Amino acid sequence: MKVAIFGVGLIGGSMAIDLKGRGFASEVLGVTRTERSAKKALELGLVDRIVTKDEAIAEADVIVLCVPVNILVEELKYVLDNVHHAVVTDMGSTKYNIVEAVRGHPKRSRFVAAHPMAGTENSGPEAAFSGLFDNKVCILCDANDADFDAVEKVEQLFHTLKMNIKYMDAKSHDIHAAYISHVSHISSFVLASTVLEKEKDEEAILEMAGGGFESTVRLAKSSPEMWSQIFEQNKENILEVMDTYIEKMYHFRNLVNKNKFTELAGFMSQANEIKKILK
Amino acid sequence: MKVAIFGVGLIGGSMAIDLKGRGFASEVLGVTRTERSAKKALELGLVDRIVTKDEAIAEADVIVLCVPVNILVEELKYVLDNVHHAVVTDMGSTKYNIVEAVRGHPKRSRFVAAHPMAGTENSGPEAAFSGLFDNKVCILCDANDADFDAVEKVEQLFHTLKMNIKYMDAKSHDIHAAYISHVSHISSFVLASTVLEKEKDEEAILEMAGGGFESTVRLAKSSPEMWSQIFEQNKENILEVMDTYIEKMYHFRNLVNKNKFTELAGFMSQANEIKKILK
Repeated sequence: MKVAIFGVGLIGGSMAIDLKGRGFASEVLGVTRTERSAKKALELGLVDRIVTKDEAIAEADVIVLCVPVNILVEELKYVLDNVHHAVVTDMGSTKYNIVEAVRGHPKRSRFVAAHPMAGTENSGPEAAFSGLFDNKVCILCDANDADFDAVEKVEQLFHTLKMNIKYMDAKSHDIHAAYISHVSHISSFVLASTVLEKEKDEEAILEMAGGGFESTVRLAKSSPEMWSQIFEQNKENILEVMDTYIEKMYHFRNLVNKNKFTELAGFMSQANEIKKILK
Repeated sequence: MKVAIFGVGLIGGSMAIDLKGRGFASEVLGVTRTERSAKKALELGLVDRIVTKDEAIAEADVIVLCVPVNILVEELKYVLDNVHHAVVTDMGSTKYNIVEAVRGHPKRSRFVAAHPMAGTENSGPEAAFSGLFDNKVCILCDANDADFDAVEKVEQLFHTLKMNIKYMDAKSHDIHAAYISHVSHISSFVLASTVLEKEKDEEAILEMAGGGFESTVRLAKSSPEMWSQIFEQNKENILEVMDTYIEKMYHFRNLVNKNKFTELAGFMSQANEIKKILK
C-alpha cells in the first residue's frame, strides 16, 4: 500500500517510520512545503520519495494530512477535490471546523477525521521517532460520515501504530480537547512566562527545577505557531475553560491571602480526586 | 554512625534506605508520631529501631528532621534544647521561618538547614524508595551559622545520597522556591480542579490525558496537608508570584478573545525561552 504524508514533521515523520517499518506501507511518499523539510525527510530516511501534491493524490492509497491546522482545511479541500479512490485522514488537534468545512463535499465519505493524542514538545523532521504513538489514544471523529472501507483502512493504520482507537463526534472532541489538553498547554505557557519574569536568576531555575517545575513547564516548550492556530480554531471552548481556571486561581489566592489554610487544604483535596482517574 | 530520622515517610524513609545501604549510617533510628508509621517503617525495613525523641537525641550522631513544616520549628527547638554533640538537619520546603525561629539559640551552630529538591506526588513510608535523591539538588541555607564540622557531616550525608549541594541564604531560598517550585504546584492544583469541574466525562479525561494533561497535572496529586503548610509558611512570596501568574493568564485570555493570535504566538515564543535554561 502506498501512503502519502503531507507534512513530514514530528507527527508525519514518526508515522512514516512505523507505517513503513511495520509493513502497513510498501512505500511512503512525502509532500513538504519547504525544500529544507524535503531534504531532511529524505536524509533521515523518513520517506522513500518526495513528490508534489498532485503526484501524491494520483499515486497514494492512503493520504495522511499532518499539516498545521491553519492550512489543513485548504489542503483537505484540495485533496478531496482531486482524489479518486484513496482514503484521506488528518491529524489535526481540532476537529469541528475541519468536518464542517467539508460537510456536503461530494468526496466527504473518503475522509476520516482523526486526532492521535501523542506528541512531544519538539517539532520538525528531526524530532520524529519510532514508537511515538505506541499505546496512546487516537480519536476518530464523525466516523459515520465516512465510507465503511475508509474507516476500516484508517483503523488498520492506527492499529499498526499500536494506538487505542476511540470514537467521538467532532464537536464533543473539541470541547474535551479544550477542557483537558489545551488548558494544560495554556497553564504551562503562563507558568513559564511567570517564572521567566519573576526569576532573573537562571542558575536558581536550574537548581530548583527538580521541585516540580520541570515536568509542569514541559509543554511550554511547544511550538507557538502550532498552538496559536489551535487556540484560534478552538477559541470559544478555550475561553470558557480559561474563565473557570482564572476564577479558581483567584479563589486559591484569596484563601492564601485570608489565611484560610484549612479551606485551602480542602480545595487541594478535591483536586487530589484526579488520582482516582489517572492512577 | 547512628542516624535518627524524625518522620519516616517518603523523604525520611527514602533517606533511611540509602544512608544505611550506602554505609553512611551503621544504624538508623526512626521517630514517628503514629503507631501505624512505626509499624510500617519496621515492616518495610526502613529503620532498624523505633525510638522515642529523647532516646534518639541521646543516641544519634546525626538527627534528620523530616516532619511536616508546621511542626518543624517546634521539633527543632526541642531537639536543640536537648542535644549535646549531635548534628541536626531538616528537610523543610521553606527555610526562612525555621532559621529565624532558632536564631540566637545556644545550640544554633549544631543545626544545618537543608532542602533537598526531590520528591514524588506520593507520601508515607510505603512511598519511600532507594535513589529518590540521586543526582538531584540539595540546598543548604545559612550554612555560615553552623559549625564547620556540622556542615561537613551534613555535606557527607547529602553526598552519600548523590546530591549536588548548593548554598543559599534562607530568605533567597524561600523567594526562589515560591517563584519556581511552589507556583508550579499551585498551577497544577488549579488545573486539576478546573478539569474536574468542567469535564464530567471521566472516560474522556483518561482518553485525552496523553495530550499533555497527565504530566502537567501530576503535582496536583501531592499532599494537601503538606502543601497548605508550605503555602502558609511562604505566604508573602507566593502571593507575589500568584499575582504575576494571574495577570499573565488574563493577558493570554485577552489575546485569544480579541483574536490577536500573532501577538499570542509572540507571548508563547517568550515562554519558549525556558528551553534555553531547561534543555
